[in-house]
Amino acid sequence: MRVKILRSTRNLVQQSGFKGATVSAIAEDANVATGTLYRHFPSKSALFSEIFRTATEIEVRKVAEAIENNTTVTQQLIAAVNCFSKRALTAPQLAWALIAEPVDPIVDADRLRYRQAYADIFEQLIAAGMQSGEIPNQHKSISAAALVGAMAESLVGPLSPPNKANTDKKKPLVTVKDKEALINSIARFCVQAVTGQEYSL
Amino acid sequence: MRVKILRSTRNLVQQSGFKGATVSAIAEDANVATGTLYRHFPSKSALFSEIFRTATEIEVRKVAEAIENNTTVTQQLIAAVNCFSKRALTAPQLAWALIAEPVDPIVDADRLRYRQAYADIFEQLIAAGMQSGEIPNQHKSISAAALVGAMAESLVGPLSPPNKANTDKKKPLVTVKDKEALINSIARFCVQAVTGQEYSL
Repeated sequence: MRVKILRSTRNLVQQSGFKGATVSAIAEDANVATGTLYRHFPSKSALFSEIFRTATEIEVRKVAEAIENNTTVTQQLIAAVNCFSKRALTAPQLAWALIAEPVDPIVDADRLRYRQAYADIFEQLIAAGMQSGEIPNQHKSISAAALVGAMAESLVGPLSPPNKANTDKKKPLVTVKDKEALINSIARFCVQAVTGQEYSL
Repeated sequence: MRVKILRSTRNLVQQSGFKGATVSAIAEDANVATGTLYRHFPSKSALFSEIFRTATEIEVRKVAEAIENNTTVTQQLIAAVNCFSKRALTAPQLAWALIAEPVDPIVDADRLRYRQAYADIFEQLIAAGMQSGEIPNQHKSISAAALVGAMAESLVGPLSPPNKANTDKKKPLVTVKDKEALINSIARFCVQAVTGQEYSL
């Protein structure tokens, strides 16, 4: 039952953000009474926190795995951007909900941990690259935070091409070529920022 | 009266974010009745929107002016980061309120325009640099969004060293040297990302 409620919540968030995941919508989707929902989760915030915890495990682990399969900092960064971007562009509403959607202060604390988990991965990657001499010395936690910010803003934030297309009622970013161009641009930005070397894919 | 209400609101936001700027706190600070406040502004959101509009004019113009006083893309970017950072570190609560504090959907639309105004400046700067051949060709709106994200996250977001110090109850980032190191790290990240060249200050 607990799993069913979580699955319904995640589906609703994926469709229409945390805003769309009302208690009644979740209960209906999971085919349970709202009372049953509250027996498993003391509050909607507690349920949303669980969604964040799972996402932190799943999404962040995917990026960590993509990095592990590569050796140079450049290739690791490209793999991380590719992995994060493809998942974000496949489920943009979910990506936006996790990264940026305003919810409530309790959920914001979970979001902080979610963003921090990405930053931690980048910080390790940068630390290893500095130690091996592959990239110049830099303030690793600042570079890591800046990478998270750059990826979040350009891919899922309100200024990102996918969202701007949506807001401006322009044609959406649908073609595979558009998406590849977007991902490559962000990968290049991130690699250049950290390595200080011109990079063309 | 209108100006007085706006000044009080801005002061309260600067002290404790939009959360601290309640109608009663604003009325008390401005020494007016709440009824008077509502005669000038139909809602708290309308008042906050005005705060955003003013900030968009003032803050964004400062950054635009800093850029205008420089010629190369590298120097322009450094000037922009310096200007944005110094203002953000001087009034961190205000910077956070404008860039990131969850408020309500109406205010979020104003925030989008605020962030977009910064992105527009960067986009122009990048376009000019590409045209003069000073920087490599790139997707200018993506680079611009990524710059805004990188600066916002590393300076005023929850992952930024000033805020992390606060959250982790570590010693705050107070010394001039700490602040300079932070600003230089972000400037370097941004310059390298856009120019593709190693840069040391």
